Amino acid sequence: MAYFDVASSAPLHPVARQALLASLDEGWADPARLYKEGRRARLLLDAAREAAAEAVGCRPDELVFTSSGTRAVHSGIAGALAGRRRTGRHLIVSAVEHSSVLHSAESHEADGGTVTRVAVDRGGAVEPAAYGRALRPDTALACLQSANHEVGTVQPVAEVAALCREAGVPLLVDAAQSLGWGPVEGEWSLLAASAHKWGGPPGVGLLVVRKGTRFAVQGPVDERESGRAAGFENIPAIVAAAASLRAVRAEAAAEAVRLRELTERIRARVPRLVPDVEVVGDPVRRLPGIVTFSCLYVDGEALLHELDREGFAVSSGSSCTSSTLTPSHVLRAMGVLSEGNVRVSLPPGTAAEEVERFLAVLPGVVAAVRDRLGAPAAPSARTAEAADGLVVDALGKRCPVPVIELAKVIGEVPVGGTVRVLADDEAARLDIPAWCQMREQEYVGEEPADTGTAYVVRRLV
Amino acid sequence: MAYFDVASSAPLHPVARQALLASLDEGWADPARLYKEGRRARLLLDAAREAAAEAVGCRPDELVFTSSGTRAVHSGIAGALAGRRRTGRHLIVSAVEHSSVLHSAESHEADGGTVTRVAVDRGGAVEPAAYGRALRPDTALACLQSANHEVGTVQPVAEVAALCREAGVPLLVDAAQSLGWGPVEGEWSLLAASAHKWGGPPGVGLLVVRKGTRFAVQGPVDERESGRAAGFENIPAIVAAAASLRAVRAEAAAEAVRLRELTERIRARVPRLVPDVEVVGDPVRRLPGIVTFSCLYVDGEALLHELDREGFAVSSGSSCTSSTLTPSHVLRAMGVLSEGNVRVSLPPGTAAEEVERFLAVLPGVVAAVRDRLGAPAAPSARTAEAADGLVVDALGKRCPVPVIELAKVIGEVPVGGTVRVLADDEAARLDIPAWCQMREQEYVGEEPADTGTAYVVRRLV
Repeated sequence: MAYFDVASSAPLHPVARQALLASLDEGWADPARLYKEGRRARLLLDAAREAAAEAVGCRPDELVFTSSGTRAVHSGIAGALAGRRRTGRHLIVSAVEHSSVLHSAESHEADGGTVTRVAVDRGGAVEPAAYGRALRPDTALACLQSANHEVGTVQPVAEVAALCREAGVPLLVDAAQSLGWGPVEGEWSLLAASAHKWGGPPGVGLLVVRKGTRFAVQGPVDERESGRAAGFENIPAIVAAAASLRAVRAEAAAEAVRLRELTERIRARVPRLVPDVEVVGDPVRRLPGIVTFSCLYVDGEALLHELDREGFAVSSGSSCTSSTLTPSHVLRAMGVLSEGNVRVSLPPGTAAEEVERFLAVLPGVVAAVRDRLGAPAAPSARTAEAADGLVVDALGKRCPVPVIELAKVIGEVPVGGTVRVLADDEAARLDIPAWCQMREQEYVGEEPADTGTAYVVRRLV
Repeated sequence: MAYFDVASSAPLHPVARQALLASLDEGWADPARLYKEGRRARLLLDAAREAAAEAVGCRPDELVFTSSGTRAVHSGIAGALAGRRRTGRHLIVSAVEHSSVLHSAESHEADGGTVTRVAVDRGGAVEPAAYGRALRPDTALACLQSANHEVGTVQPVAEVAALCREAGVPLLVDAAQSLGWGPVEGEWSLLAASAHKWGGPPGVGLLVVRKGTRFAVQGPVDERESGRAAGFENIPAIVAAAASLRAVRAEAAAEAVRLRELTERIRARVPRLVPDVEVVGDPVRRLPGIVTFSCLYVDGEALLHELDREGFAVSSGSSCTSSTLTPSHVLRAMGVLSEGNVRVSLPPGTAAEEVERFLAVLPGVVAAVRDRLGAPAAPSARTAEAADGLVVDALGKRCPVPVIELAKVIGEVPVGGTVRVLADDEAARLDIPAWCQMREQEYVGEEPADTGTAYVVRRLV
């Protein structure tokens, strides 16, 4: 089995496993207690904090361990917003943040705050100047991920941090995807991360609050972890998290070169091996191990199942693979195709042979799924019986069927003529324009319809 | 080393260790994913939920795993209060709840809610009728621990739950100390617990919300664990928690008998072996493994250090062992002596020899601490130079010095006469009345003084 979904969760690093086992015996007691077992637990906790702080590049007393990366984000955002409440209640996030950040933003809005969501380019990156323009006198906090979890695009954190600092606004960086690769550059004020992303155990997050950053802990008081992370400290897991962070960092430089070469193979070869594919994410400023592409006329869930049967674990931002039946907010913000979406995220140590096997298997898998859905094998070129003003009824049909129906009829539309696709699947809003861009047709826009929405396309070629 | 502080944290149960190791290999993936590793993780999580629900006596879909017992309490209280906000904003807690409950109550008050703290008797138990009288038409939630964490007193949960049900008020039970011994009786609505108290790993709590209980999750949205526990699931620890709960339950009946006999030895023999000791907590309705006593004229921190040197890990509710320098709120609510407080909580499997060794060592340790503090060796009986209206200046002196100073001069006070002890240590407020009760003197009351407080005592014998 080739596990290519390390951006979701990494298997436990051998060093983490060792450290966990050792500290299960040594670190189970309450570190607040005065007796031997308590003092021993405290020593382990302090040592883990120092190791993690060194890896982050902060002071140990600026770093607390939380119960997850999500919790670090929730607490960090809530505390920073409350700490600067007198300044104002404006929050800035990028449109492609992790759901924990976006849900915190929604929660802030529900509570009467305001939120600016900074757009990204088609590669998934924010533009520093655009981010800077979102800064206002009442901005309490700005958030930016170090790198995107779905497409691997690295964000210009140092540049944005400099703009924030100039404006006197603290920047919180969600470093979940990148901390295993190296410290976050720039003068950020808060940082959150998650240990199970770098091969540490689940149940451990990091929250760093730089000295001088206003911070007011929200929720009931709790004495542990400087009052910033309620609940009994999970010391064995914390020790394992710190040990594995140090271990993956030691391997990071070499692994980055290796994995970048492997993801480059996928980036370069998938579009040649599989017709009608869009590789998404920044081609240069990206994490070493993540590569993402979308396949026209493919049902993402079926694709994942077929790849699973072939022994590959990958993830997808396609609507049909999510419980909400909407495409990933990241792909939406980027304006790229979401159907048949596949994210490959390679764990350190991935063998080149596994990637080659993936590349060997993928074309057949995509073809089989397309075949089953009755997707057009090649761009339709029929022009017989040209019919302007055609309407395709794809109501009640899920992604990728509306796009397949459109592709089937485009040959019947005269060049310069339009076709309307009626659809009520959210993915159509993203995928019909993306199809137009890939097919060099014109996406005219959407119109309200009695049921669902009418997406208007003009045939150009 | 004899670890007698299992009420703080239990060492990992061998079954938990095994389960943790196995599921580190099987359960590290994201259970929301569709591929094999994800499905395997989901199966482990589901099985753990079923096992835990069976042990609690609830439906699996009523139970979520949180990152700690504290988090379960915080989320449970916040969600239940918000769910019944239309009914009102009144919260009832007992005065001896765990700090996580009391801090939630303070947070609710800071947010504009009202809180009734139900008093306890000298044994630490609430009286059901008194608890019932606290119920009001605007009561949104009532909280009661299943058993007290400091003195082991079992609370009348079933009776209180019946009164709450009659009034239509949900009862949240903090079952942290008792869940390893058995399910919580009665028709409670919510339940919180913590795995590291029963030999599970740290990082796992339980929150149970019975069907039909109004509940509105607070904080940012998160899909995991029915939306009630944000963050990536800690499946290896959850599996270990459920496995160890089942394991300790299998041993519970036999261990309860054994430990009860051992704590009974301590309850009965400490007062005979050590002069001026008050054993606290309900003598009958109590947990099997906890016994608590306080020693007059003893500095709790010094006592803990000496016991640690002799190889015993215990905890204390004395003021000088806490970061706040105030005596435990439990001892205060009970109105019992707090100085020289020792809580012994025996782990399952404790050997009788260890308890015997503790009983052999304790008298010498207490005597040594008293000696160092210059405590009166025996009740003072001097009546020469009787001086009514004596004032003892113990300002700036920490517990147990004010009580020692009082004991030193009481012999100089004529029978019927009074002495004033000036003190600014919080513990004096609790310990001077407790001393009077133990010495059969009259505690008249306190008076404001220029600095600190004057505690007035009348000599009766």
